[in-house]
Amino acid sequence: MDSNVKSIGVLTSGGDAPGMNAAIRAVTRAAIFNGMRVFGIYRGYKGLISNEIEEFKTNSVSNIIQKGGTILKTARCEEFMTEAGRKTAYENMQRHGIDALVVIGGDGSLTGAGVFANEYNIPIVGLPGTIDNDLNGTDTTIGYDTALNTIMESMDKIRDTATSHERLFFVEVMGRNCGYLALNSAIASGAEAAIIPEISIEKDQLAELINQGFRKSKSSSMVLVTESEVTGGAMNLAERVKKEYPQYDVRVSILGHLQRGGSPTAQDRILASRMGVAAIQALLENQRNVMIGIRENEIDYVPFKRAIKKDREISPELLEVLKISSI
Amino acid sequence: MDSNVKSIGVLTSGGDAPGMNAAIRAVTRAAIFNGMRVFGIYRGYKGLISNEIEEFKTNSVSNIIQKGGTILKTARCEEFMTEAGRKTAYENMQRHGIDALVVIGGDGSLTGAGVFANEYNIPIVGLPGTIDNDLNGTDTTIGYDTALNTIMESMDKIRDTATSHERLFFVEVMGRNCGYLALNSAIASGAEAAIIPEISIEKDQLAELINQGFRKSKSSSMVLVTESEVTGGAMNLAERVKKEYPQYDVRVSILGHLQRGGSPTAQDRILASRMGVAAIQALLENQRNVMIGIRENEIDYVPFKRAIKKDREISPELLEVLKISSI
Amino acid sequence: MDSNVKSIGVLTSGGDAPGMNAAIRAVTRAAIFNGMRVFGIYRGYKGLISNEIEEFKTNSVSNIIQKGGTILKTARCEEFMTEAGRKTAYENMQRHGIDALVVIGGDGSLTGAGVFANEYNIPIVGLPGTIDNDLNGTDTTIGYDTALNTIMESMDKIRDTATSHERLFFVEVMGRNCGYLALNSAIASGAEAAIIPEISIEKDQLAELINQGFRKSKSSSMVLVTESEVTGGAMNLAERVKKEYPQYDVRVSILGHLQRGGSPTAQDRILASRMGVAAIQALLENQRNVMIGIRENEIDYVPFKRAIKKDREISPELLEVLKISSI
Amino acid sequence: MDSNVKSIGVLTSGGDAPGMNAAIRAVTRAAIFNGMRVFGIYRGYKGLISNEIEEFKTNSVSNIIQKGGTILKTARCEEFMTEAGRKTAYENMQRHGIDALVVIGGDGSLTGAGVFANEYNIPIVGLPGTIDNDLNGTDTTIGYDTALNTIMESMDKIRDTATSHERLFFVEVMGRNCGYLALNSAIASGAEAAIIPEISIEKDQLAELINQGFRKSKSSSMVLVTESEVTGGAMNLAERVKKEYPQYDVRVSILGHLQRGGSPTAQDRILASRMGVAAIQALLENQRNVMIGIRENEIDYVPFKRAIKKDREISPELLEVLKISSI
Repeated sequence: MDSNVKSIGVLTSGGDAPGMNAAIRAVTRAAIFNGMRVFGIYRGYKGLISNEIEEFKTNSVSNIIQKGGTILKTARCEEFMTEAGRKTAYENMQRHGIDALVVIGGDGSLTGAGVFANEYNIPIVGLPGTIDNDLNGTDTTIGYDTALNTIMESMDKIRDTATSHERLFFVEVMGRNCGYLALNSAIASGAEAAIIPEISIEKDQLAELINQGFRKSKSSSMVLVTESEVTGGAMNLAERVKKEYPQYDVRVSILGHLQRGGSPTAQDRILASRMGVAAIQALLENQRNVMIGIRENEIDYVPFKRAIKKDREISPELLEVLKISSI
Repeated sequence: MDSNVKSIGVLTSGGDAPGMNAAIRAVTRAAIFNGMRVFGIYRGYKGLISNEIEEFKTNSVSNIIQKGGTILKTARCEEFMTEAGRKTAYENMQRHGIDALVVIGGDGSLTGAGVFANEYNIPIVGLPGTIDNDLNGTDTTIGYDTALNTIMESMDKIRDTATSHERLFFVEVMGRNCGYLALNSAIASGAEAAIIPEISIEKDQLAELINQGFRKSKSSSMVLVTESEVTGGAMNLAERVKKEYPQYDVRVSILGHLQRGGSPTAQDRILASRMGVAAIQALLENQRNVMIGIRENEIDYVPFKRAIKKDREISPELLEVLKISSI
Repeated sequence: MDSNVKSIGVLTSGGDAPGMNAAIRAVTRAAIFNGMRVFGIYRGYKGLISNEIEEFKTNSVSNIIQKGGTILKTARCEEFMTEAGRKTAYENMQRHGIDALVVIGGDGSLTGAGVFANEYNIPIVGLPGTIDNDLNGTDTTIGYDTALNTIMESMDKIRDTATSHERLFFVEVMGRNCGYLALNSAIASGAEAAIIPEISIEKDQLAELINQGFRKSKSSSMVLVTESEVTGGAMNLAERVKKEYPQYDVRVSILGHLQRGGSPTAQDRILASRMGVAAIQALLENQRNVMIGIRENEIDYVPFKRAIKKDREISPELLEVLKISSI
Repeated sequence: MDSNVKSIGVLTSGGDAPGMNAAIRAVTRAAIFNGMRVFGIYRGYKGLISNEIEEFKTNSVSNIIQKGGTILKTARCEEFMTEAGRKTAYENMQRHGIDALVVIGGDGSLTGAGVFANEYNIPIVGLPGTIDNDLNGTDTTIGYDTALNTIMESMDKIRDTATSHERLFFVEVMGRNCGYLALNSAIASGAEAAIIPEISIEKDQLAELINQGFRKSKSSSMVLVTESEVTGGAMNLAERVKKEYPQYDVRVSILGHLQRGGSPTAQDRILASRMGVAAIQALLENQRNVMIGIRENEIDYVPFKRAIKKDREISPELLEVLKISSI
């Protein structure tokens, strides 16, 4: 292989996700292993524009694999959406002699990378870093497994209270327009149901579900709800139940930002390490403007234009498993 | 010792707290060890009235020391506040031959126990089970240490995101009119401040605190807030900051019910085990109408009338430690 | 579908694995959902022979999804390897009217199931429950992901000490003749190397690895070792290093049985729930003598004769990722 | 207060303990808060001799409160036991203008501090950092609560396997000649017994204990053993049981170094923060050669000569609680 890339920059962009540090570590070390120089760029595209750039050595990424968040910090950057912003970014890359970029982030971050790559003919490789697992071209994303486990562990705690008091809990989780995280969390935590945007919830379904849950054992119930305009969110559903089923002792819990943090799980650390090494391999192969994906446990290169946010289909099998295993 | 107690009932009442199961286990086994029979009463005073009572053997409490919540379940019971309710409760005790009660719960539960004990001349021993640690006569309560650690672990996760995005977080924790839990949580989690009901927060103090936090490092800040009318809660404080300091990227997290659950910590399991054994010892000594307290690491008997909710004084030392260690 | 199975038995056999309870729960509820009766058989084949059999209702498996171990307990059973033992087992099935079995366990347990199934023409479906992930026909097994995370979390703790004291640690993990768990754990925990039976370790490789690790940063190193005659185990490797490199401060840690326990991860709970539901589905489809596998995230039926212990090939990609990401 | 201390050094020495970082953080910030300069000294006395000293600012200790181990690293140092070594150490202090030291460590480290302080008339304040909780003059030490919880969590995992297989486990924990940690761990984890050096274990006692444990429920048993010549350690006890009670399925687990690591608990973080602030307060008050202790939840100053390793008396109450609660 005869790559022209002698020096790379690495940045994290968009919402933080557990495993980003493991990815930064692997990217840095794989680049150095292959004779490249590495520059850490702080605060995503914002730092690329404001020139917050620092050379990384192997020790720069020691003892970070287990840390949540991102040591490179992250930010949203409107200036990068302007031509002037991207011009400054490019000039900073030239100033440091950076030939190529590795961008770790979600849908928006990779789209921005695509525009920048085309405009200035820069090789850019993306890594999918988002807890939502809502990107095309990869079976899973860095951060998803940790968020899933974090939600489940919170649910395990809430179950203690729900069971002791025989209450009905509506627990709201992240995921915007994507119920994948909520559905899997519901199965993992033994919840009665997941109310997700992909499935329209008729009033009778809610009623049926509650009655089933309580008829079964007079015991507790937990229902996971995706934060979303479509579902209405946990608070609205709880209000409705309180009005229509005043006999139920209803509570709401909104998990919020703790879902993004925490030490990454083994799956996320391994995934991030594999993807980080693969990103440098891709640059060595003169790949450009691809996201590293994982398909059937094999590394895959996914052109940016395909790696956009997807409407992941909700698996009927998973819906069935949730319904049956919680009777 | 020549105790008249041959048979006891044990119940949990009020909000659940981690360690209640460890207490039930110790009460049950200490009673059996001393030749008594033991009856588990379900759903607190409610089950005493509705006769949900079951004999317990040593195996009934196997493998529960590590479980959050309470296997006896808990409920609030308005009927027990009536004379008729307590009469039925007493009749059910007689029906099962129960001579004495061990009641595990908070302020309200122990007050109810005191009324019942006096009315029917029943020996009752209370154990302080509440995450708020707001009872007189004991240095700590069953559940407090676990709740403290649960909040801290949630804060550790939120810090990942706060640091990565350089945000200001207001995190709301339980504690009603008692800032003890919030203040200790703030120290343990390295937060910048705790806004608690015991201390009136002037606008300038909030401003000063925020400026200090951000001036220091331009990095993240976390502020713990007790849910309370006095503090206004996290949401209100965040709104004020957004208006007055629009440059800050403010977020709110309300930890909610997960603070009550989870496997108890070592301190809570040991405390509950010691108190459970001590409750039976107290009955053997013909003590009655006392709460088991812990003072300077020694078991103490506290008359119910002293074991009421206290306005725990906020330690100036702890306030100083929080202020200094977060500069 | 017109299945003849009206009543099933479920048992766990061999070494316990986290997620077995989630599988028992799903099997029980899916069977009841489909109109079958369910019998829990205690202590694996041993309880089938000694008739430790109890009917299960949906509530029998409430609140167990989060528990490690197996509520049905498990045992090794030599008597089941005899014709007489299996005859008694069969007679007990007939006594309870059990038409079919779901067996949750590893290689040996499924092999025994195959023999029994053929001998008495009983429909048996197996679920792969083992932390070693060493079965053919399935990408992963129930318990593997939890064990991986348990090892990683232990390594995170050991790293604190290793780093503080700048020591070299050899940490021994389970896996017998299969280094899959050790290799993945090493990547996830940021260890320097995994010494596994599939790769013969020449003296010079060990030397090189140690020198590299220490040359890099003079800091700590952690090496994972599979317990195995081939690798010699952690203790032997440490002895060799102490002799040949007396300058290193070497320590050994043998993780032992804690690797098998603990609350299952989300992946293991979801996998177990899916497989449990699929097991009943397979019986409804008149499948028999198959193990439920998962291939490319889809449920698969694997004939018992193929579902034997495999010599899983060690992925060159993973070896490369470990080597590069720990420079 | 009119202290002569303008500049301090802080170091960690001896075995690492969780919470040391929280102590370093509090010491550093309290010193800066009071107008002092602060120097971090690496690798304990070793770094003081080899001049591995670096000025610390408030940001030097950001985001470390939650970390196990010690960012200052630690080492044992024989050279400091020599006059020549201490002379070099003193010269390095003078070179940096360091007036006083804060030493975080156990018995040996504080003894060394005492010698050095007297020899060169340097104000030194010690903080008790050791998981063993075996120092006079303080109710508890930094690291003890975390180690207790780490052991308990490991026991929770081992219990899953012990219960599933109905085995007898001997689990060996740290503590040398001090059974305090083992006894408390046994109560917290619901073990049957703790075999500790303070109590001579007659053969009949072991026999009785095992028979009781198994007679009770035919179920699992866990026995905690302190690593010690007096107890013989877990391995020896297991061997004896295997010979004398071949009917029991015995296993051994030696927890080892993972007991020292891990993110500190709330109690340890709060204790370390309070003690760190108090150490600077003591220097401001011209205290010298004292260890900061905590007695009945109040900060106390303990002269070094009293703060030696103690033979902590084993509480008869705790032995009773263990015995009764595990019947």
